[in-house]
Amino acid sequence: MTPPGSALGAITVRPVSRTLPPPPQTSFASDNAAGVSPEVMAALAAANLGSALAYGDDHWTRRAEVAIAELFEAPVISLACWGGTGANVVGLASVLRPWQAVIATNAAHIVTDECGAPARFSGATVAPVPHVNGKLEPEALAGYLDWFGTEHHPQPAVLSVSQATELGTIYTIEELAALADAAHRAGMLLHLDGARIANAVASSGSSMPEMVRDTGVDLMTFGFTKNGAMYGELVVYLRPELAADARFVRKQASQLTSKSRFVAAQVLALVEGGLWLRNADHANRMARRLAEGVGRIQGVEIAHPPEANAVFARIPQWAIPPLQEWSYFWEWDSSQSLVRWMTSFATTIADVDAFVAGVAAVIG
Amino acid sequence: MTPPGSALGAITVRPVSRTLPPPPQTSFASDNAAGVSPEVMAALAAANLGSALAYGDDHWTRRAEVAIAELFEAPVISLACWGGTGANVVGLASVLRPWQAVIATNAAHIVTDECGAPARFSGATVAPVPHVNGKLEPEALAGYLDWFGTEHHPQPAVLSVSQATELGTIYTIEELAALADAAHRAGMLLHLDGARIANAVASSGSSMPEMVRDTGVDLMTFGFTKNGAMYGELVVYLRPELAADARFVRKQASQLTSKSRFVAAQVLALVEGGLWLRNADHANRMARRLAEGVGRIQGVEIAHPPEANAVFARIPQWAIPPLQEWSYFWEWDSSQSLVRWMTSFATTIADVDAFVAGVAAVIG
Amino acid sequence: MTPPGSALGAITVRPVSRTLPPPPQTSFASDNAAGVSPEVMAALAAANLGSALAYGDDHWTRRAEVAIAELFEAPVISLACWGGTGANVVGLASVLRPWQAVIATNAAHIVTDECGAPARFSGATVAPVPHVNGKLEPEALAGYLDWFGTEHHPQPAVLSVSQATELGTIYTIEELAALADAAHRAGMLLHLDGARIANAVASSGSSMPEMVRDTGVDLMTFGFTKNGAMYGELVVYLRPELAADARFVRKQASQLTSKSRFVAAQVLALVEGGLWLRNADHANRMARRLAEGVGRIQGVEIAHPPEANAVFARIPQWAIPPLQEWSYFWEWDSSQSLVRWMTSFATTIADVDAFVAGVAAVIG
Amino acid sequence: MTPPGSALGAITVRPVSRTLPPPPQTSFASDNAAGVSPEVMAALAAANLGSALAYGDDHWTRRAEVAIAELFEAPVISLACWGGTGANVVGLASVLRPWQAVIATNAAHIVTDECGAPARFSGATVAPVPHVNGKLEPEALAGYLDWFGTEHHPQPAVLSVSQATELGTIYTIEELAALADAAHRAGMLLHLDGARIANAVASSGSSMPEMVRDTGVDLMTFGFTKNGAMYGELVVYLRPELAADARFVRKQASQLTSKSRFVAAQVLALVEGGLWLRNADHANRMARRLAEGVGRIQGVEIAHPPEANAVFARIPQWAIPPLQEWSYFWEWDSSQSLVRWMTSFATTIADVDAFVAGVAAVIG
Repeated sequence: MTPPGSALGAITVRPVSRTLPPPPQTSFASDNAAGVSPEVMAALAAANLGSALAYGDDHWTRRAEVAIAELFEAPVISLACWGGTGANVVGLASVLRPWQAVIATNAAHIVTDECGAPARFSGATVAPVPHVNGKLEPEALAGYLDWFGTEHHPQPAVLSVSQATELGTIYTIEELAALADAAHRAGMLLHLDGARIANAVASSGSSMPEMVRDTGVDLMTFGFTKNGAMYGELVVYLRPELAADARFVRKQASQLTSKSRFVAAQVLALVEGGLWLRNADHANRMARRLAEGVGRIQGVEIAHPPEANAVFARIPQWAIPPLQEWSYFWEWDSSQSLVRWMTSFATTIADVDAFVAGVAAVIG
Repeated sequence: MTPPGSALGAITVRPVSRTLPPPPQTSFASDNAAGVSPEVMAALAAANLGSALAYGDDHWTRRAEVAIAELFEAPVISLACWGGTGANVVGLASVLRPWQAVIATNAAHIVTDECGAPARFSGATVAPVPHVNGKLEPEALAGYLDWFGTEHHPQPAVLSVSQATELGTIYTIEELAALADAAHRAGMLLHLDGARIANAVASSGSSMPEMVRDTGVDLMTFGFTKNGAMYGELVVYLRPELAADARFVRKQASQLTSKSRFVAAQVLALVEGGLWLRNADHANRMARRLAEGVGRIQGVEIAHPPEANAVFARIPQWAIPPLQEWSYFWEWDSSQSLVRWMTSFATTIADVDAFVAGVAAVIG
Repeated sequence: MTPPGSALGAITVRPVSRTLPPPPQTSFASDNAAGVSPEVMAALAAANLGSALAYGDDHWTRRAEVAIAELFEAPVISLACWGGTGANVVGLASVLRPWQAVIATNAAHIVTDECGAPARFSGATVAPVPHVNGKLEPEALAGYLDWFGTEHHPQPAVLSVSQATELGTIYTIEELAALADAAHRAGMLLHLDGARIANAVASSGSSMPEMVRDTGVDLMTFGFTKNGAMYGELVVYLRPELAADARFVRKQASQLTSKSRFVAAQVLALVEGGLWLRNADHANRMARRLAEGVGRIQGVEIAHPPEANAVFARIPQWAIPPLQEWSYFWEWDSSQSLVRWMTSFATTIADVDAFVAGVAAVIG
Repeated sequence: MTPPGSALGAITVRPVSRTLPPPPQTSFASDNAAGVSPEVMAALAAANLGSALAYGDDHWTRRAEVAIAELFEAPVISLACWGGTGANVVGLASVLRPWQAVIATNAAHIVTDECGAPARFSGATVAPVPHVNGKLEPEALAGYLDWFGTEHHPQPAVLSVSQATELGTIYTIEELAALADAAHRAGMLLHLDGARIANAVASSGSSMPEMVRDTGVDLMTFGFTKNGAMYGELVVYLRPELAADARFVRKQASQLTSKSRFVAAQVLALVEGGLWLRNADHANRMARRLAEGVGRIQGVEIAHPPEANAVFARIPQWAIPPLQEWSYFWEWDSSQSLVRWMTSFATTIADVDAFVAGVAAVIG
């Protein structure tokens, strides 16, 4: 926390603020600091014509359901929810009984960033296991195999992975398939938190069906907010029978949207013409450019090559506050001086270059 | 269910569908079948500039919080939620412990239309009492006074009323004050489900502070969706100390909005220039016009004079299906052949007149 | 609450306490104010030999399971729980999903006397309907039939009745069968809270199979505590498939008993030789004797003939405090000056006669 | 899992069962496989005289409350519960709000052996951290300090330790005080799961006040079942203000005992004359004798010296099934071939010697 030399009392002037370049136009704090894709905004305006029954009983919602099934090339069931935590809650609560458990890494959003929402609502145990670069490994299941069948222990029923992970890494197709196999062999389901699934698909070069249908994902959250929507995420059930009660779960979880046409219009705007992939691909490229730029600065260590739209870097602890003041971002792990910089569909090349210049001005 | 005369076998032709006039341009099914006020849509577009931190840490949200405090003329705390059920859940769960109870009428949205969400999330008992024209009467508390202090019984802690009620009626200022007094004397809070508070304020001729601050309401849901917003409702705590933990409750209830500026922009568009009241007043006037119009039709009995934006009418049972097919609406109580017709900011005089003409064509 | 004349200030001496006969040796406050049947105590001592695995993995438990199946003359599944509230919670939570509802009367123990435990633990809605002499009528379902299939409403899934009821009345075999039929036609289950099922069976002259197996009860709480046990109640699943997950529910509800042999030993002591019925029959007879005795006292009005082991009577309000001080009992409904007097296996003829004498001394 | 040599097909005869000595009279599977102390059984019989109001409103309960306060030498509040899981649930749920978290080791009973009961009932997050010989270290808190104040994260509110631990180890007075300090500095409470607190106190040579009052424990489960009772555990609040709502929590958790005098009578039998410590000390001595005896057998490795009434040992994997068949016990961790042998108040020297002889016969 203390700049080098301060113990000597010598460096009393903090010159950084004087010499910093103009900050970037967009924030690198998170991909949800971005606004809404222009195409999405246009779709919202276009949907604002006349009346439409609420709660999913409208033509936009029906069209979106068809579009999603076409995207997955499978008879999936999709249910719109307000936000990402809500979609995770609805998905998990619709397949978990309270005496069961979902296993996820200790970096998972459902473990650390949802204030306990999935466990509180489902009643089920959220059992964290250590991650490796943000990823869950099939071996993590081993410790729980003895729990099956004994009423003293929560019964493992779901394995949940984030794709892209919270650390900006991507499971390969093979890794996902191995996790699905491990889960299914144990009689469990594989849930995928896809708040950034678009970034993962764009990064992988594979298609959505290849990544989730063919690997054996059973249900997932399909995120749109971080991909250019204003709000709205889908729970997608790749095994339709899992959705039998899901509409009741969604309503009871306060996730049934009222003027539902507006969520559906955003989904259509992003999915039908491939905007979801273009937006994600752009964000991913900006992250790579950012990693390359800051990676060249002495004192910046890239934690791992960015696979999606996040750059994790270790920078000197003393440099964090002035940089945050200049253009805010989050410190990810204060014990390792690890920071996170995120890009989005709205990040421009000029933004990246401005950010690199600022980092260089402070640290370099 | 059977048209008169059918027992004779004489009337075999159902001529209604041939002779019906064109249906109205807007739906009378519900006020959430309407789209978004043009001013709100413009505000959404205007807010879509540059970056803004998510989760309420943005300038729009701070401005909206100030605007709400000014509207209430009190240091209220307001928290944005996604929807109405969510806002009721957050408000109630932030002031209820699981072994307590909230008392509401058996017509209340929290009792019948939220799939048990408030009870499931808070753990508390939702205790229904009979309503009188949609309203809760202070006497309803009497049966619960013996429950205080005994661990076998849920402990009554909150009285919840809807304003306007689900039956389109309005509590007078005096009635609300009497309920608040009854609640406070029993050591309870008064919660107000204001999904249609704008219609109530507009109808009453009093101001928001007069209706809720001065009567003693402790916390409320302030609805915007049915008043012209795309989405977004506020929990407003008139006693700020009640909000001490509310941010955690909101997050755990999956009601913390991600790109929060867009909810705040809508609130500002509706509140700052008085649009919320103009929209509500328009809807109320359309309901009165509708009641007058259909009230003149032989065979239509208005259940009670519309005080807000809903008309409840008893019509012949056989007339309901053809009318629904022509322009959909809900049957409220099949045992009394009671139907509900709702107006909104988007309902036009021409819509009302077209609807009256259709009802007359079927029934008259 | 005030004795007549007190307003005049004239009657300052309360002579009742001087002239009261000695109070009864046993309490009429509740059947759980009694101790433990001597045979049960002997069985507890006999079971205290050597080691036995805990948590139901012992010979006593297996023998009790067989004995219960023989008593029901059916392949029922029975699970021991600590107490009556716990057994209701386990039974209901094992067949209810959180978005469903259980319908019961507003006098039901699960509605008024379990501090909301069934709803909190199951997440499901407990929907009260008015009772008629403590009983649920099949018509009570009617108002909920419109709720099926619509996600806005909790989905009715269980009908729950108490036998004997909390008002000391008994459903006839025909009434139970009609309720089971109504429930099953609606796709619901019939749950029976049998905290006092022994009193009901003994009173009815029919057998346990006739009363619950043949009428269509799907699952029930079989109470022992009020019938002479120290503690311990069973959940009995008459449709074994309903118990598929029940062991997990029981453990998570903190109702899995540790030294399980001691519950089983009590069940065996009560069931194997018919003690459960003899105890209940005795309690019922004492209640009838009590009703006859106090019924002859001027000023005492028996609310309805006692069908089980409770006498409900209306007595002068001023007489309640001195009588309670003499031998405690509960006022049931202060608005009607209705009191409850309960008998148990331990109540003697002398106790009844002493109690009648005391009531006569105060009121007569 | 396979005995050495079996791959050769040579050793087809498993001679162990022929040559084993007679098994011990008591089980080493768990301390709850024992029955009830004779003094406790006598106290139960003695309490079975006459009537006593239920639900804690009896003289035995009041006497037990006084006895507990005297034992703790502090104005503690104690509430009786049915069992250990229930007492942990009541204690934790009475001090946790759903958006908070309790931190415990991944060996803790509340994490692994209560089927998720504390989390389901309280709604709060149970956050596991690695243990060191069964113990929680103050450093475990460090990773959670960043979570305070941010609504995305569950808010750490309670640190929970087991004394004795599930691995049979004991926190020293200094260790407990350091944990209490760490908790209190972070604004958290220290909860102690004392299912085997008697064994810990007896082992430590310190008194109950020294171990829990003076170290700063805020609330605890005081276990009796494993110490010679038939059933019944107490939640003890060392800070009485924490118990303000506890009676409602207990009832809603289905842990309010009906015929409460019988729990209180057991507590009195164990506590008043010091039987609780004598029983525990005996069990501890039997464990030490067992560890010494089996420790001398070639092929048996004592995992750590027994500090309470459990011996953890690594033995050859092939030896486990025949030994279990001879006298059942649990394998604790199949990956390390670690078994647990427990003693109780009922274990005799002859039992220990018989068990040692059996282990020697199989392994030695």
